[in-house]
Formats: sequence, C-alpha cells, structure tokens
Amino acid sequence: MIASPRIGSGNGRLSGADRRFLARAIERGRRGWGRVHPNPMVGALVVRGEEVLGEAFHAEYGGPHAEVSALSALDDVRGATLYCSLEPCNHRGKTAPCTEAILASGITRVVFWAAEPGVEQSGGAERLRSRGVVVDGPFGKPSEWAAENPAFFRNASGRGPYVALKLAVSVDGRIAPAGGKRVWLTGEESRREVHRLRAGFDAILVGRRTWEADDPMLTARGVVVPRVPPVAVLLDRRGRASIGLRALRRRSGPRSIVATTPVGAGPLARRLSGCADVVAVPVQGKGLDLAFLMEVLEARGVSSVLCEGGGVLAASLLREELVDRLYLFVAPVVVGEGGVPAFPITQPGECAPEAFRFRGWKSVVDPSRFGNDTLIVLDRGD
Amino acid sequence: MIASPRIGSGNGRLSGADRRFLARAIERGRRGWGRVHPNPMVGALVVRGEEVLGEAFHAEYGGPHAEVSALSALDDVRGATLYCSLEPCNHRGKTAPCTEAILASGITRVVFWAAEPGVEQSGGAERLRSRGVVVDGPFGKPSEWAAENPAFFRNASGRGPYVALKLAVSVDGRIAPAGGKRVWLTGEESRREVHRLRAGFDAILVGRRTWEADDPMLTARGVVVPRVPPVAVLLDRRGRASIGLRALRRRSGPRSIVATTPVGAGPLARRLSGCADVVAVPVQGKGLDLAFLMEVLEARGVSSVLCEGGGVLAASLLREELVDRLYLFVAPVVVGEGGVPAFPITQPGECAPEAFRFRGWKSVVDPSRFGNDTLIVLDRGD
Repeated sequence: MIASPRIGSGNGRLSGADRRFLARAIERGRRGWGRVHPNPMVGALVVRGEEVLGEAFHAEYGGPHAEVSALSALDDVRGATLYCSLEPCNHRGKTAPCTEAILASGITRVVFWAAEPGVEQSGGAERLRSRGVVVDGPFGKPSEWAAENPAFFRNASGRGPYVALKLAVSVDGRIAPAGGKRVWLTGEESRREVHRLRAGFDAILVGRRTWEADDPMLTARGVVVPRVPPVAVLLDRRGRASIGLRALRRRSGPRSIVATTPVGAGPLARRLSGCADVVAVPVQGKGLDLAFLMEVLEARGVSSVLCEGGGVLAASLLREELVDRLYLFVAPVVVGEGGVPAFPITQPGECAPEAFRFRGWKSVVDPSRFGNDTLIVLDRGD
Repeated sequence: MIASPRIGSGNGRLSGADRRFLARAIERGRRGWGRVHPNPMVGALVVRGEEVLGEAFHAEYGGPHAEVSALSALDDVRGATLYCSLEPCNHRGKTAPCTEAILASGITRVVFWAAEPGVEQSGGAERLRSRGVVVDGPFGKPSEWAAENPAFFRNASGRGPYVALKLAVSVDGRIAPAGGKRVWLTGEESRREVHRLRAGFDAILVGRRTWEADDPMLTARGVVVPRVPPVAVLLDRRGRASIGLRALRRRSGPRSIVATTPVGAGPLARRLSGCADVVAVPVQGKGLDLAFLMEVLEARGVSSVLCEGGGVLAASLLREELVDRLYLFVAPVVVGEGGVPAFPITQPGECAPEAFRFRGWKSVVDPSRFGNDTLIVLDRGD
C-alpha cells in the first residue's frame, strides 16, 4: 500500500498506457485498506482509447467487487478495456461472479495484474477468454502481488496468520536510549502512518516490556477507521497484567487478549476478571512459544498480526522466522551504543550468525518518507 | 538528484499542469550530473497549451544553458511558456544571458522553480517582467532548491566545500562485522549508485582504516563519466601510505592527495616520490584537523567532497558539524552488536549527548531503492 505499484517488467504485451492504467488500478485498490480484509484490495479502471470512463475500488468486505462497481456506474462500456489489479473472480460468493458482469457489459479486453490465488475464485481469465474477450494477464511476479496484498496471499497459502513487525529505530539501530526510557524517535507523520497500518490488521501484538513502559492503547486512531478494530494481544509470561492497563480498559472493539503460561492462566484470568481473554501458551526458552500463540490466534479468527515490539519480542519473532514483513521506520537520530538495540539477537561484542543476517529478505515495496523519517519495508523471501 | 522533485505546495499560482511541467524540467536537469558542476543542474521545457514543444538540460559546463538549448532547437515558440528549474540568468558569463534569448524568442510566460543565488546572475525574473513577460516564480523553499543542487547553493553561500558523507550500513547501524573485515553489506545496485554519485563530486575522501582495509581506487566507474574526475584524498596521520596503494597508482585523472601532519609531510612526500600530493594538516585531538583540511582542499579548487568513511572519520566529521548531507545506504542485514558501528560517537554502554542526536537533520529528498537496499538522504538543517 505504499509508493508506486510494481507492474513487473519485460512484458511486451503491455503498452505504456496499459502500464499506467494498471498502476492506477492498483493504486485505487489501496483505498480499501482497513475495510476489505480478509478480502484483497482491488482497483479497477474502465478505459476507452485514452479516456478513463470510470474507476472504482473494492470498498468494503461483503460489498461489490471493484470490477462490478466500475462497470455498474457506467451506461455504455461496449468496446472498452477493463484494467484490474486482480484477476476477475469466477465465483459466486457474497456477490455474483465478476466474470458475468464483464461478459454482460460488452467489455472487449481485460488487462489484469495478479493471478487470483483462491481455487474456487480462480479461472476468471480462462472463462472470459472462452467467451471471446481479449485477456492480458497476469503480469509481474507473485512476490510483487504479495507485497501489495501480503496478508491475502499469505493466508491463501494456508500457513497461519500473516505477521508484520513494526519497529521505529534510530540510524544506529536503537529503539530507545539506555534504560528503555520512552522517547519518540520518529515524528508525528510516522506515528500517523502506524495508526493507518494498524487499521489493516486483525491483531496488534506487544511484548511485556513495551506495555509496561508505554501502556499503549493499541487502537487504530488514524484517518482510516477499520471495519473490524484490531484486537490487542499482550504477552505476559509472568502474569503481571492488571486491569489498569489502557489496552484492557478499551470501551469499544474486541476484548483484548493476554497470553500467559498454562500454570498462570487461571489466576491471571481471575485477576483480570473479564477485562481480557487470557490464553494459555507453553513456555519456550525464556519466553512464550510464539508459534503456538500464532496458532491460538488463528483459531480465534486472526489472520494478520502487527507486532509493535519491543526489541526482545522482535528478536524472538525473527529468530523463529515468524516474521513475514518488517516495517522499519528510520528516524534521523543517533542514540549511541548504550541505547536499546532493535535487533538484540547477539550479545555485546558478538556478531550475528549467518542465519540471522536477513540474507534473503527482499525490498519489494519502495521506501517512503514520513516527515523526516523513512519507512523501509522488507519482505521475507520464501 | 533522486526521486521526485518537490515543487513546494500551497501556491495557488500554479496549475496541476504547471507543476507537472516544472517537475519534468527539474528531472531533465538531473541528467547534467557529473558534467556541469560547479554550475547547477538545470532543465527547461517549452510548452504550448498542453503540448511539449521541446526540452533540454544544461549538459556541460561552459556549454549552452538549458533555456537556450530548449529554445534554439525550436522554430517558432511565440506565445509558448518556458518552464525552468532555475531562474533564467541575466548575466554574460561563458554564454550570453538567457534573458536575452527568451525575450528574442517571443515566449510570453516563464515559470521557474528556484531563485538564482548568484548576485551577478540574478535579476533575470525582474528583467523579463520589465519587458512584459509573465513570470511565475520562485516556488518552493530554499532548502528544497538546495536539496536538488546542494553543492551549488552551498558554494554560493561562501562557506567552504560542500561535504557529503556516504555510509553503507546494516539495519542495526553497522558498517562491517567485528574486526572490520571487508564485506559488502549493500548490493550491486547500491554500489553502482555510489559510482554515479562520485561523478558529481570534486573529491572523494577516506580515512586511514578504510584505505588500509579496502585499498579502494576511488574512481567514478559508473555510467556517468565525470567531466573532471574526482580527486582522491587519503587521510594518513601516521604517514603510512605507500606507492603500492591503488588510489595512488591511477593512470588518469588528477593526482591523489594524501593528508598528513606538518612534521610527517616532508618524509612522506619523499617516500611517495611524486605519486601523490602530500598536504600538511595540523593534528587536532586524535586525528587531523578536518576543518583545516577542507580549507586546504578549497584552496586547491575543490568545492565538493564525498566522504566514504569509515566510521571513525564519519564520526569526526559529524562531531565537527562538517557534514552537509548524509547518504545512508541501508542494507537488509543484521550484523550484530559486535560489528563496527557506523556512528561511533559514543563508547559501548553510553548514550549520545543531545547535540549528536541529529535533531535538526531533515529528509528533503525522498528515499529510493537500489535492489534490496534503501538510500536515505539527510540534509543538515541550517
């Protein structure tokens, strides 16, 4: 959802105009962030010659798909081209198949970007071709499609919740000065973007040190109001959470989840007396078993998790290879060697083993600027 | 010279098309990188209605200015608008004043972005207005103009050479693993960009540890062939440089400079026997007096310096506030706490004093992606 979409290169079938319209369709699709998941964000454009007759995006889960919205707003689209960021579906779900609407409209060419990954939903391109529509697509690479709609493509693979890790760091890789004192390294623009990001996730996860130090509300208080507010998930191996925490005192949205050990779950649940759902997670090493936690969350309907630190939790998630995407907000600040490292995977004086050097991580999404901060997005290579 | 130009906002005099053409003029100007300095990079567009009749950029120092190039390639520009990234000059230097060419052409409107900072060269807008041309400009902020042509605006202020610091770091702010072993953290695309960057600087500066460890050639071996190859400058307080160093064995381009102490200069010059110019620089603290070195370089005609590390030199330059711009290539790699810090301004366990926290540094240029690496450009606020 950031920067320019990547159409993929080296495909002679697309003209410059085709690419431009396809990029615009992808960009329009991004407006569905926070409102359409678990569906993907999709945009569509109807174009005749060089004139854009209409455009739309999938605006709300359960509502019309982008293709249908774009077509239904227009009187006469015969002979026009439909550009869409995802292969039109061929499936009757909450709405009628997009392929039927396209065939009924008189559209003669369809250009689409990403292939539909769902088994039931796919086959749209084939269906349209069999009825004489010129269909160009898919274009680009699965990694590029996944970068645009990561949770959707990840979930389609059936491998548990999609996990993104957000860290705000100084240029020397610190998340806070010594002692973990709370300071804002990043500026207001970055913090606004974090609220926007939150709106697109089912759950926000933080480690114990973070909720103890910051007492965050963990709500999405940005311009995008999420269709379903994300659930707050607090790690609490020692069973220290109290009903005074702001994340547990939220008036609206889903009840927060506190994860603790199987032994501690009963007492903690009693102490929190209905302010939160306490879930039991086995201990692994020094912390809770995070892979197990992800399974628990998935069973509760969570398909995407945004982890907002701190460093210890981040390092554990990275070590266990549970992170699919890293959102790294880099602030123009030097904290110094004594600061709290964002990636505490080594002891002082020690170098990271090859396995933790992130080799294989890819930058598929272009970086962007928020005030004086830079957002770097890294996706784990598969 | 990176990412999208920033036109500045909130100026009602410019239409959307005006902004687009102005941005395009700025972008075209960037093609002069490495060829025009100490002149600024300038681009110009001639537009009638929505049609671009012609465009040009200042291509070579001493050659025609962008405005004149754009106009002279066209037969009839009467009634057209000229967009240029810098105020047209009103001065007879190596070429005739642009204002004369514009008045002679029949152009009826000029839209320009940055104000001409030179005293002799300025007054172009006024001159055109006095002759009945509609002139819109300048737009945006001096910091934005300076971000596009930093050395030019910096030099116009008469405060010594413009100094950029390039560092390639891991996400945890390291430039190398423990022991300083040479590894490439960044990828090939970043290294190509560094060669392109070098082409736009008068000098490339490195500290002793860097030339000892890497033995770099310090030439610009990229797609841009610099008009004047940058001179290599090696710091050598202990007088250890030898004629075997690759930077001193270059067959072409200017002779390299080795900076050492006043006491060591004589012996070193004899030992290097004409392979390099040895300059004497007083000692300050643990190293050479870098502000003094900059004055020496300026006296030798160097108006811009790209410092490529290592960390110790970088920290000294930052501490002495000699850095105007930071080019930070961030690689998707974690090195670990034992690695060599890019910003060794503190001891282990220590936090940076407020003064070194970079508060006031600004991100004016958008970040860009080179392969899996991200280039963050930070400019010092003045």
